[in-house]
Amino acid sequence: MLRQSSGTLTVRASRQGLHPITNPVLAWLAAQAISRGLLTLFCRHTSASLLIQENAAPAARRDLEHYFERIAPEGGPYEHDDEGPDDMPAHLKAALTQTQLTIPVENGELRLGTWQGIYLFEHRRSAPKREIALHLIGE
Amino acid sequence: MLRQSSGTLTVRASRQGLHPITNPVLAWLAAQAISRGLLTLFCRHTSASLLIQENAAPAARRDLEHYFERIAPEGGPYEHDDEGPDDMPAHLKAALTQTQLTIPVENGELRLGTWQGIYLFEHRRSAPKREIALHLIGE
Amino acid sequence: MLRQSSGTLTVRASRQGLHPITNPVLAWLAAQAISRGLLTLFCRHTSASLLIQENAAPAARRDLEHYFERIAPEGGPYEHDDEGPDDMPAHLKAALTQTQLTIPVENGELRLGTWQGIYLFEHRRSAPKREIALHLIGE
Repeated sequence: MLRQSSGTLTVRASRQGLHPITNPVLAWLAAQAISRGLLTLFCRHTSASLLIQENAAPAARRDLEHYFERIAPEGGPYEHDDEGPDDMPAHLKAALTQTQLTIPVENGELRLGTWQGIYLFEHRRSAPKREIALHLIGE
Repeated sequence: MLRQSSGTLTVRASRQGLHPITNPVLAWLAAQAISRGLLTLFCRHTSASLLIQENAAPAARRDLEHYFERIAPEGGPYEHDDEGPDDMPAHLKAALTQTQLTIPVENGELRLGTWQGIYLFEHRRSAPKREIALHLIGE
Repeated sequence: MLRQSSGTLTVRASRQGLHPITNPVLAWLAAQAISRGLLTLFCRHTSASLLIQENAAPAARRDLEHYFERIAPEGGPYEHDDEGPDDMPAHLKAALTQTQLTIPVENGELRLGTWQGIYLFEHRRSAPKREIALHLIGE
């Protein structure tokens, strides 16, 4: 019999950039009575986003962060800067990555590849507290 | 008992750019007999896309539109222009944003953050009629 | 009564770039005892990704490939190059496109638009074998 379960992951990144959340997501999953199904993560913000990326090489994550700083730089020709120079670049980086991720679950585990980790991509310098809505459906 | 429901949202943007669809999505949701679950929006086009972004500041939306015009400009070194100069930039902008969004539903409401709105990102100048497939699963 | 089904699609692209997978996805779908619901594809790699794009014009696909080569070029200012010059561009292109796609299913068919095809976007020159996790829920 299929059922569903929902929750919220509250995270504060230690700084601007990629912040690993695979472990707290797995901890939440382990506490649910569903071991096969579909897990959805939904970032409830427009200046932070979600990304699945390389979980082994810190240099790859640094390159990713620098790349997004280059293609959506502070000091660009932006009209909107209500919350400072990192405001509009944050929205652009969020638009270029993901607000939502859905991952199949099998035998109580996420079907991530060996080198995949889940990251909160924090785009603000202030790194405020962020909420990620969680939803699990399955059996 | 879990069940599912499906539909189609037909939208025509008033112009090229971000066109808000949160309200018609909520109206469809309110008419379904499911108040907790998972809502999926799927854009059935390759020259328009979906985006969750800032719902309060019009300047942020204008900056987003201009940004995508800069990074995927008309007049680029494109081979494909069957439907005019906005044809290939439309495909590029669609590839850089989302064709599909999945949003958890709780108590009959989308779990969007306070500042999040759902947008059809229309990439063609002609702004044709667009179909967004809707799917809701839950109870 | 809702049920679910899961599987794996193993694909090797013939070269770097967009590799069509709509047909093998449809073949898998046709073998499942679910004709209405939600299909999720999850790419288990960080140097390949998924994209829904133009299925008719090969020139549009070539333009897409060239565009991503221009915005995430080999030889950029990257720190990470453990696996060669195409290593870091592969992660960037994956970050800019999709790791996961969820598509509504109705009457045993994907609700793709007329011009939409599903592609594995292979970012490595070597085009290794890739696994795409499949999950179907519905009735």
